[in-house]
Amino acid sequence: MGQQIADRRDIEFVLYEQFDAEYLANNERYQGLNRKAFDLILTEARAFAIKELLPIMAEGDRQGVRLEDGTVKVPDCFKKPFAQFIENEWMSLTEDPEMGGQGLPHLIATAATEYLVGPNFAFAGYLGMGHGTGKMIELYGTEAQKSLFVKNLYTCKWAGTMMLTEPEAGSDVGALTTTAVPNEDGSYSITGNKIFITVGDHDLTENIIHAVLARIEGAPAGTAGVSLFIVPKIRVNEDGSLGIPNDVICTGLEEKMGIHGSATCSMALGSKGQCQGFLLGEANKGMRAMFHMMNEARLAVSMQSLGIASTAYLHAANYAKERVQGRDLSDMLNKDAVSVPIVRHPDVRRMLTWMKAYVDGMRSFVYFIADCIEKEENSQDIEEHKRCKGLVDLLTPIIKTYNAKYGFEVCVQAIQTYGGYGYIREYPVEQLLRDAKITSLYEGTDGVQAMDLLARKIGMEQGAVFQSFIKEINNVIDRARKSDALASMADAVDQCLKDLSNLAIAMGTTAMSPDFKIAFAHSVPFLDVFGDMVMAWMLLWRACVAAEKLGEMAKKKDLAFYEGQIKTAQFFCETVLPVTEGRMKSIKNFSPAPLEMDEAAFGG
Amino acid sequence: MGQQIADRRDIEFVLYEQFDAEYLANNERYQGLNRKAFDLILTEARAFAIKELLPIMAEGDRQGVRLEDGTVKVPDCFKKPFAQFIENEWMSLTEDPEMGGQGLPHLIATAATEYLVGPNFAFAGYLGMGHGTGKMIELYGTEAQKSLFVKNLYTCKWAGTMMLTEPEAGSDVGALTTTAVPNEDGSYSITGNKIFITVGDHDLTENIIHAVLARIEGAPAGTAGVSLFIVPKIRVNEDGSLGIPNDVICTGLEEKMGIHGSATCSMALGSKGQCQGFLLGEANKGMRAMFHMMNEARLAVSMQSLGIASTAYLHAANYAKERVQGRDLSDMLNKDAVSVPIVRHPDVRRMLTWMKAYVDGMRSFVYFIADCIEKEENSQDIEEHKRCKGLVDLLTPIIKTYNAKYGFEVCVQAIQTYGGYGYIREYPVEQLLRDAKITSLYEGTDGVQAMDLLARKIGMEQGAVFQSFIKEINNVIDRARKSDALASMADAVDQCLKDLSNLAIAMGTTAMSPDFKIAFAHSVPFLDVFGDMVMAWMLLWRACVAAEKLGEMAKKKDLAFYEGQIKTAQFFCETVLPVTEGRMKSIKNFSPAPLEMDEAAFGG
Repeated sequence: MGQQIADRRDIEFVLYEQFDAEYLANNERYQGLNRKAFDLILTEARAFAIKELLPIMAEGDRQGVRLEDGTVKVPDCFKKPFAQFIENEWMSLTEDPEMGGQGLPHLIATAATEYLVGPNFAFAGYLGMGHGTGKMIELYGTEAQKSLFVKNLYTCKWAGTMMLTEPEAGSDVGALTTTAVPNEDGSYSITGNKIFITVGDHDLTENIIHAVLARIEGAPAGTAGVSLFIVPKIRVNEDGSLGIPNDVICTGLEEKMGIHGSATCSMALGSKGQCQGFLLGEANKGMRAMFHMMNEARLAVSMQSLGIASTAYLHAANYAKERVQGRDLSDMLNKDAVSVPIVRHPDVRRMLTWMKAYVDGMRSFVYFIADCIEKEENSQDIEEHKRCKGLVDLLTPIIKTYNAKYGFEVCVQAIQTYGGYGYIREYPVEQLLRDAKITSLYEGTDGVQAMDLLARKIGMEQGAVFQSFIKEINNVIDRARKSDALASMADAVDQCLKDLSNLAIAMGTTAMSPDFKIAFAHSVPFLDVFGDMVMAWMLLWRACVAAEKLGEMAKKKDLAFYEGQIKTAQFFCETVLPVTEGRMKSIKNFSPAPLEMDEAAFGG
Repeated sequence: MGQQIADRRDIEFVLYEQFDAEYLANNERYQGLNRKAFDLILTEARAFAIKELLPIMAEGDRQGVRLEDGTVKVPDCFKKPFAQFIENEWMSLTEDPEMGGQGLPHLIATAATEYLVGPNFAFAGYLGMGHGTGKMIELYGTEAQKSLFVKNLYTCKWAGTMMLTEPEAGSDVGALTTTAVPNEDGSYSITGNKIFITVGDHDLTENIIHAVLARIEGAPAGTAGVSLFIVPKIRVNEDGSLGIPNDVICTGLEEKMGIHGSATCSMALGSKGQCQGFLLGEANKGMRAMFHMMNEARLAVSMQSLGIASTAYLHAANYAKERVQGRDLSDMLNKDAVSVPIVRHPDVRRMLTWMKAYVDGMRSFVYFIADCIEKEENSQDIEEHKRCKGLVDLLTPIIKTYNAKYGFEVCVQAIQTYGGYGYIREYPVEQLLRDAKITSLYEGTDGVQAMDLLARKIGMEQGAVFQSFIKEINNVIDRARKSDALASMADAVDQCLKDLSNLAIAMGTTAMSPDFKIAFAHSVPFLDVFGDMVMAWMLLWRACVAAEKLGEMAKKKDLAFYEGQIKTAQFFCETVLPVTEGRMKSIKNFSPAPLEMDEAAFGG
């Protein structure tokens, strides 16, 4: 059996050959770290994931969460690895060690996270949410709040949540009705109901710190009247010790299609009138702070999608190499021919190549964003800082949505590779598909992300951010043109980029015209072709690196790997980009039909 | 709440306006039947489905099947509707009443079946398989076999199965190892193990008649040595009474992603050496007979996919009209604006229009095949008979695969329309998606169907069948050109047809060249664009009918419905066909990358 989670060789390729991660060792911030240290960390993360996390994937799904005596119980099998996770300090990898973090560069942390999240993000959710809550407090909290909460959250001693959604509000956050009434002691009394709260309650930590959006009495309507509050599950005394329970209870668990190990909670705040909250940041400015956590969560979803796609792909590849069935097509008329592994069948090879293209491309995309965040944080140059931040902002809705869509689609293809066995619970891929589906829904649906891209991101800084995105891709196209083997691929990617630029202008123009609704009717397909463009860019970039390595002919043992990079880029350019081109034409038709359809014509 | 299963208005449109089903009343075979009778039957089928079948959809999923004391127990809630189904005579709708059928035309039977299968094909499987087994016996059995089995199978007094798959053989049926040793009394002793047997055992009927593929001792290797046997669960005496159990047992049930109410069985035949089977048809000619049942099963899968897609779409449409969330895009800056139903949001409209296009197109496709079967059976003209049979043969792999793929995809879009609620078991769409996934896997995976299309179907009768397919579409294009409103759509469909013809030639040529593997590497995408062509044809056909009706301006009350037909065709031509064009270009590139990839480059 080959690798079942993230592909180590490919991660090393991305880290050290595509993004030259060794440069990080030269940064003062990472004094004492070098490639050897990085490798050691990743070896440990991988070993831990294989030994402790992969085995509980199926069991967590079967056992699921349950609500007993008002408390959520996680699957029993989660307890031991959770404790080990904390003991071995796998949390808040990029944060300052003084605050409870591990002080790692983002690229290295991303690779470790890929191992740790990959096979089981239902489990990983209990660990990751605390960091987001802590980060908001670090950024927006008072000194007292920081010292009470941040370290406990970063070390996973306490867990965190993000409480936005309400039954009537959903994606329309501004419509929320949870109220906050000021108390004399400066705290607030919170009253309201929240739903779909990921890891909203559980029995893994002694406390849970909720970040709650609520409306202070008399605040303006809409998002302009939304404030953010810290609401601990158990009240925290000024000395940091725990007090009495804080009237935040889980009233129900959603039964879901997948991620059964992850508690999706309905929460009641202040049902006894005793829910105490503390304003975090300024009143009525809650959305700004929450956006930080939402963006972090969106990037986390893109990692979940990559992890699940990589796991599904590797399982399918292993299965295809081991499962013997049917004769080679060349031997169809030879009755004495033996059966062969199904990886020999052309259709299976197409599926594997397709999966590989998306998994490779998504991985490079995720690491590219990590590298941008790294550079954004470290750069002394204000322009460089702005450029990197712009790229992250622009690409966040795309990486969240695109990885979710194609991560799920990789699971579909993996099931197809297994044939009937793919539908059976004895094999892992059906669970991966069920788990994957959530990624297109939570942290903002595809529709919400596509509106963000079209209404806010494309036009950022009068298009300067989009231009710097184009420049990044042109750099890779120029690099590819230096290799004969890549010249025609470079042409294909170049054409796609020109078409995307034109389309972006057409979309932007339409979105600002009286017909703006037509642009929004096609915003999800627009995001999708944008994502294709990123895949093409990443795969061509990988092919450049591989072609250069092959030119050096140093490591013959990696021949198949490097040639595989070039073949994958070729496959994408030859089979996906013509479809992308068709999709761009389709969008440019700006079909008004969906808007003109009489509502009565939809369904019964 | 609107309709939740098949859309009655649309079914009537397809039956009476697209396919002019009233012509059937003129056929001697259907003496005494007329539109009024048809409508009465469909009203009853619909009422039965809504009252008895829709309510057990979720319960059957929750309870699932279980193996107790060697027998499979179906969900309790299946018992009552199963008995009613038989009592009300909803089975074998197109068969001769003297054999236990209902003597209905295929088109009308198809409409009734859409209601009866639609919301719950896990349940419907227990009813449908017996017909297939009975049909094989009717076609290939001796008189004695026919009188013993056919009527009991057609009336669902006894159930049936189709036993092909074995653990090592899978799609490679010729590799099966179940053996048949002749006994002195003319029967055979069967020994072997089968897996993935749909409704292989259950407690709904007093007997189950298995159609088993096995190899008579000494038979040639491969499919040329495969024979078909009748193997009753309980032995049947010559007078038709039941004898002793026949050593066919269920050894296990698969736990699956969906269709939990459907028993997917591992079966042991002759584990005590006492499994008696009877040769059906000629020795070593088992595949020919089984192909009849397989083709019927493939068409049944296309109906399952339509049923589930229609149910998912109608739920999503109802939800979108009822769920109020967010302001209208026109009111984004107006803080006093009220929230609107999400059907007002452009992205939701795009999803609904997309779903409608596929559901409408799949429905017309299914009914077109039914009408071809009708004409094939009834035509006195040998050329017309051949033409209709050819169309059914050519289109069977396409309708099975394409409807499965897009039926599943409609479920994905339905979940997306619900947002987070789509992932929750409280709402029906997540179950529909889990159920739908099986349709791409059983009765031949996509890869198997695409090989059938490319290797056998495209070239049938030196391309004459493909030509008659083209002629059908050209008829509709010519009809569309008579309406100004449809002229540009007609052009788009015409171009697509020309491109498909060229592609088919390129595929056929490549498949017969030394590079034939490249054609097979792209055979699934080829089947997919073929399916797009069928959708475009069907939707344009619908638009022709609608435009002509609108021209008459008789029924103003149906304005929204007819205009909806035209808008749907427009949407497909403007947004899907450009992508189809891109896909055809992609296939024509005949990328060799999947075949050239070193196996070591796939995964770990």
